[in-house]
Amino acid sequence: MASSRCSSPDDDGYKRFTDEAQQNYGSNDPAANSLDEMGSRSSLSREVDVGNDHWGMNYHEAAIFLEEGENNEKFDSHPRHPAALPAYLLVHNNWYYGLDLIASLVLLALAVAEEPAVADFTLPVGIHGTLELMALGIITIELFLKLQWTGFSTIWKHKRTSIKAGALLIMACEALIVLIRQESHFRVTRALRPIFLVDTKVCGNVRRFIRQIFQSLPPILDMLGLLMFFVSSYALLGYYLFSDHHHNLYFKTLPDSFVSMFVLLTTANFPDVMMPSYASSKWNAIFFISYIGTVLYVLMNLMLAVVYETFTGIEKDKFRKLLLHKRKACKLAFPLLVSKQNPDGIKFKQFSGMMQYYAPRISNRDVVLIFRQLNASGSGSLTSEEFFGIYDAASLRWHLKDPPDPWFNAAWPPLRFVCRAARALVLWKYFEHIVYVLIIGNGVAMFIRIAQSAQSLEESATMFSNSWDTYLFLSIFLFEALIRVIAIGWTQYIGSGWNIFDLGVTLAALLGSLVLLFNPTFTVVVILRPLRLLRLFKLKKRYRDIFGTLVLLSPLMWSTAVVMLVMYYFFAIIGMELFASSSEALKNCCVNTTVEDFFKYSANGTTAIGYYYMNNFGNLLSSGVTLFELTVVNNWFIIMDAFAHVTNQYSRIFFMLFYLYTMVVLTIVVASVLEAFRFRIQYKRQTSKRDEEQMLLEEVRVEWNSLISQVQDSKYIDGLRTNFVPGGVTIYVGKRRRNREVLQRRMYMAEIEKWLVEDEVLDRGIDLREVAEGILDSRLRDSTA
Amino acid sequence: MASSRCSSPDDDGYKRFTDEAQQNYGSNDPAANSLDEMGSRSSLSREVDVGNDHWGMNYHEAAIFLEEGENNEKFDSHPRHPAALPAYLLVHNNWYYGLDLIASLVLLALAVAEEPAVADFTLPVGIHGTLELMALGIITIELFLKLQWTGFSTIWKHKRTSIKAGALLIMACEALIVLIRQESHFRVTRALRPIFLVDTKVCGNVRRFIRQIFQSLPPILDMLGLLMFFVSSYALLGYYLFSDHHHNLYFKTLPDSFVSMFVLLTTANFPDVMMPSYASSKWNAIFFISYIGTVLYVLMNLMLAVVYETFTGIEKDKFRKLLLHKRKACKLAFPLLVSKQNPDGIKFKQFSGMMQYYAPRISNRDVVLIFRQLNASGSGSLTSEEFFGIYDAASLRWHLKDPPDPWFNAAWPPLRFVCRAARALVLWKYFEHIVYVLIIGNGVAMFIRIAQSAQSLEESATMFSNSWDTYLFLSIFLFEALIRVIAIGWTQYIGSGWNIFDLGVTLAALLGSLVLLFNPTFTVVVILRPLRLLRLFKLKKRYRDIFGTLVLLSPLMWSTAVVMLVMYYFFAIIGMELFASSSEALKNCCVNTTVEDFFKYSANGTTAIGYYYMNNFGNLLSSGVTLFELTVVNNWFIIMDAFAHVTNQYSRIFFMLFYLYTMVVLTIVVASVLEAFRFRIQYKRQTSKRDEEQMLLEEVRVEWNSLISQVQDSKYIDGLRTNFVPGGVTIYVGKRRRNREVLQRRMYMAEIEKWLVEDEVLDRGIDLREVAEGILDSRLRDSTA
Repeated sequence: MASSRCSSPDDDGYKRFTDEAQQNYGSNDPAANSLDEMGSRSSLSREVDVGNDHWGMNYHEAAIFLEEGENNEKFDSHPRHPAALPAYLLVHNNWYYGLDLIASLVLLALAVAEEPAVADFTLPVGIHGTLELMALGIITIELFLKLQWTGFSTIWKHKRTSIKAGALLIMACEALIVLIRQESHFRVTRALRPIFLVDTKVCGNVRRFIRQIFQSLPPILDMLGLLMFFVSSYALLGYYLFSDHHHNLYFKTLPDSFVSMFVLLTTANFPDVMMPSYASSKWNAIFFISYIGTVLYVLMNLMLAVVYETFTGIEKDKFRKLLLHKRKACKLAFPLLVSKQNPDGIKFKQFSGMMQYYAPRISNRDVVLIFRQLNASGSGSLTSEEFFGIYDAASLRWHLKDPPDPWFNAAWPPLRFVCRAARALVLWKYFEHIVYVLIIGNGVAMFIRIAQSAQSLEESATMFSNSWDTYLFLSIFLFEALIRVIAIGWTQYIGSGWNIFDLGVTLAALLGSLVLLFNPTFTVVVILRPLRLLRLFKLKKRYRDIFGTLVLLSPLMWSTAVVMLVMYYFFAIIGMELFASSSEALKNCCVNTTVEDFFKYSANGTTAIGYYYMNNFGNLLSSGVTLFELTVVNNWFIIMDAFAHVTNQYSRIFFMLFYLYTMVVLTIVVASVLEAFRFRIQYKRQTSKRDEEQMLLEEVRVEWNSLISQVQDSKYIDGLRTNFVPGGVTIYVGKRRRNREVLQRRMYMAEIEKWLVEDEVLDRGIDLREVAEGILDSRLRDSTA
Repeated sequence: MASSRCSSPDDDGYKRFTDEAQQNYGSNDPAANSLDEMGSRSSLSREVDVGNDHWGMNYHEAAIFLEEGENNEKFDSHPRHPAALPAYLLVHNNWYYGLDLIASLVLLALAVAEEPAVADFTLPVGIHGTLELMALGIITIELFLKLQWTGFSTIWKHKRTSIKAGALLIMACEALIVLIRQESHFRVTRALRPIFLVDTKVCGNVRRFIRQIFQSLPPILDMLGLLMFFVSSYALLGYYLFSDHHHNLYFKTLPDSFVSMFVLLTTANFPDVMMPSYASSKWNAIFFISYIGTVLYVLMNLMLAVVYETFTGIEKDKFRKLLLHKRKACKLAFPLLVSKQNPDGIKFKQFSGMMQYYAPRISNRDVVLIFRQLNASGSGSLTSEEFFGIYDAASLRWHLKDPPDPWFNAAWPPLRFVCRAARALVLWKYFEHIVYVLIIGNGVAMFIRIAQSAQSLEESATMFSNSWDTYLFLSIFLFEALIRVIAIGWTQYIGSGWNIFDLGVTLAALLGSLVLLFNPTFTVVVILRPLRLLRLFKLKKRYRDIFGTLVLLSPLMWSTAVVMLVMYYFFAIIGMELFASSSEALKNCCVNTTVEDFFKYSANGTTAIGYYYMNNFGNLLSSGVTLFELTVVNNWFIIMDAFAHVTNQYSRIFFMLFYLYTMVVLTIVVASVLEAFRFRIQYKRQTSKRDEEQMLLEEVRVEWNSLISQVQDSKYIDGLRTNFVPGGVTIYVGKRRRNREVLQRRMYMAEIEKWLVEDEVLDRGIDLREVAEGILDSRLRDSTA
């Protein structure tokens, strides 16, 4: 099938839904596959081919293609008719995205106000019902807008859309029923609300991460199978060995035994589960030690290894697919930007016209520079190969190669003198050393302050965060920041993350000290003073690697956090519907079970461990904390046992599923951290400082005369006079941001070429295709297996 | 320094200790570096150059060099004088190794019998003191033997030897004192006894693993530094936030607060540590959630990543160093085996002479085959390059390429018929399917048996493990094994690990059933029946990968286990000396602390959690179990808190150090599992089934006439008549074992060549050396940094 050739990496669910689209974007007919033909037959422009705004429409469509490539959307959601354009533009709009996000967040937030509500946020049924209907209404309207140009049949064909539409329908009905009955019923469907959040534009990475989780599932499930074999075998053995011991409640029945061994898999009930048997014979320890040795130290580690291997394969494949998808977008956009006279090159006029739509915020100067950078051959028109660099080039930040003198050169002479002195000081080789010594001095002062005895906690906090030495060091640090700002200018100063950290922490500590001055009980601010010490870790290479990895990882960390929160929400809603009513029953529950002691409630809190009744599903926030405790795993079985006792034994399924879910996500998190760190280290090893500089910087040399001949638009030229030296030569430097994609592009250089060749082979309608597809398939299978 | 060129990977501690050795094995003098000269100047042979046994001595020394290369010993422990040879041979002897091992094990085992002894094993002071002196005496004598030929100055120069000698001295003195006073004193030095075990020959891998741990330490310590910063900062904040809450014992003082946060790093006291603060305000959960989020889910994962990266680098470097060391050994042995007439090649006579010493157990046939395999050029004499393959070639297992007909071909005709039928059955394509169906049937039968109700546990166990279906399936499985043995012969049958597993499990289950017949209370045998189900996991590729990884990992797992046990011993001895006397005090201890409930002793065991008093250091076995509980981490702080309460606060140092130690070892274990799995998967991906077969099999073709001209010894030839076809051609196949080293050699093929070139450059006394060393150093630094 031809369509497999432009299958997008993100939205596997999407299917081409009209024959027309098939013909446009990937016909099986070899003749139709030549890029020129594709361009001239492309839907939007075809309609207006004879009109006056021929180029305008083409620019617009090319920009849409590029956007789709960037956002990793399938090209079948591309508007196929000029009449669909208004709806398309409305949907692809920051205001629209914002509204969508707000509506989905409001919908999520409602769970705080609905029964069982968080105490201070309770709302009457009428109000939260109406709010819900409003949010659902907004989302419904948005969905209708989208369907305007993708066609209503998408509801049936596109999985995500159909789930969304279904969820909308059910929720609207339920909200209406709630409003009519003026009472909440058993509404477990609320757990599906995160669907709307995940479907918003900002959550593209989250969707990809969720897909990654699903792709990592098969190996995890396999390992779980092996684990369960051992759990069951040991449960059986444990039952036969210990079930007739007195007072051994862990192995009374076979299900008890299974639960005990399942929990022991997480070590949460160790050594308690061993103790009664250990008390009857010391040799029983062998049973438990061999179990933990096999299951925990061997199999669980192998599970991590399996997931890690899968994850690494997926990461590379994801990069490959995204790259090929972007390339496809360029291939589709290219023919729209060439004239019939010159079908092999994009002229500057067309390029800048397209850029107006694709990136309206990029200045004319930058458009010129991007064009120049892309046009490596210097021919004056971009070939299709050159045009593929557009995404990378558009992300460059441009500045003059030889910047004018420091910012203060035009300043009042005495000020200029001060600035020069500051600059000399900052550039002095011992300046950094002095700063580090000061930071250490600050640390020593803190130690002394902590060691001093104080009458009360407030006094101690004041001594720590509000004494003369606090202010001394804070003012020194502020002075340091000031000198740096003067020396290198504000823009360059905040260009470094470490500087932002320094200044932020110093200002926060100052603010904290002032707060403490007026409110001595607000002792939480003591944390602000030690934070400055973190800067010391920058001194050592390994710590820089670690912080660098954290920066590389941050997008993934955000996705993970959102996925975790979304699933917390899901489980919290279900937990509340199932267990909210049992919250009070937890106090003094579970008499004669192994967890009895943990629920012995004493009103004045004299017991150290009797607080577990608080881990309930009374409202959304309590549920969140309870679920977090389950995530941490330690002692999670105490909560499970209690609910199994006060409701019924099947409630364990909820807790066990949640445990398995968190285990999966956390294993993937560990795998991703490992992968990112390893990637960074290998990158560092392969790339010298100089290589990296070369990679991150692009130099563009613009001669005024060639510029005039290239632009051919006097108005446009006039606007460039301030940026380029008329009649002379100007050199600009474009800087890449050092994100994961850029590093990956460098690391996989050799492979990229191979992928492109494979893609090229697939893209031509030649006989080789099927062979190549076979090869590719088997390779993919290998890499994902 | 020239000596750096032949520095051995294993024993960094060793230093060249005589100038003579320097001259022999790595002189800086370029002239002396030519291999020929080295050979003729080599110490043993130089002395006997004029004697009759010139070749015999040379063979012997060459074999010693090869042995040293194989065991990764430094060449400076090489005997330098014929007079030293008897001592050398005595020390390098299986009986000697065995005695050494037994003496060190006896020494370790004494801790069971010394005060505080395990109840049934107590020995009078006189007996265990005498035993100790005897074991120490044996080790001392062995040490003296070794010093005979390495020189007594080794004690001062070689770290391991000097530690061993020092430990011997102290322990002998203490044992004498114990014997004189007839009473054990505070003997914490007993904790050093594992030194003798680690120094035995079988523990070579353990020593290497310990070195790997030390090499992985710097990154771990760095990460610990970062972790401790967060722990301290949060401890400070926690103290200011919660120390004046009522009933919150976790943050009463700053040290309390630090301990609580340190323990929370392991999650062991979560959620208990949060509960009192959570009870006073729900928002306090933020403090704990942010702490766990940062420290546990980010930093701890990064620690694993850092260790993993370091470990992977070390693994490769270890392989490189071992390879180069072996090569060095070959280089040293080569000149001893060539004659002056033919200095570039080893003749068969010399080769077989050397093999008599190096591998006396290898048959003449195999020596011929090894020589042929090495001599790829077919020239009849081995070049130095060909000789480098000796280690690999000596590990091959040889068999005829076209083996004679199946074993039963010479059997009694009716039997032969049965055998042929069995063979046909085993080769039938559905045979395996039927076996799997039977195994599943066995599983189903087990399920049914478990679901049946029984009067008592014994009856249920009998039904499960001693019923008609048990015997039915067991006899079917025995029959299956019998058929297989008949069809392919016993040797080939037990050549497969899975077959051994099948047969072993079946026989064990049968034995178990019989035991149950005579002693129905011995219910532990029920575990034997489900084990057979494990075979089902062989069906899926991923499980085969997992089991394959386990096989690859097994040497490392053994090393890890020994290191863990050795350190358990170390900590157990210290624990016993410090805490044995407090064992009884644990009952009902810790009143008014957070762990009070866990130590409430009730004689009839009515409480579910009050068993913690049993986790003490009363004797070696109890200490072992207690330390295992600390290793598992869950609830470890309960034990620590109790000892801190009944002895003093500083005892926490013991527990915290043990936690850090186990964390380090377990992190390295995880890293090694990850590394091994990844290695295996990548190997599998790069190597097709055919490639692998080619790699594992070597074919050698022997023509009788060429054999005669090669061997030139009619007696020798006569002995080969049964193995080779006189006058004809015989083809043998040599099979490699698929161990890690073989796989590594294939995976690093490209790098190996580079290493050898680098080594060659270093080995010549040319100017390039220093440059190359600089390059190498920086590379090594990068790879270990």
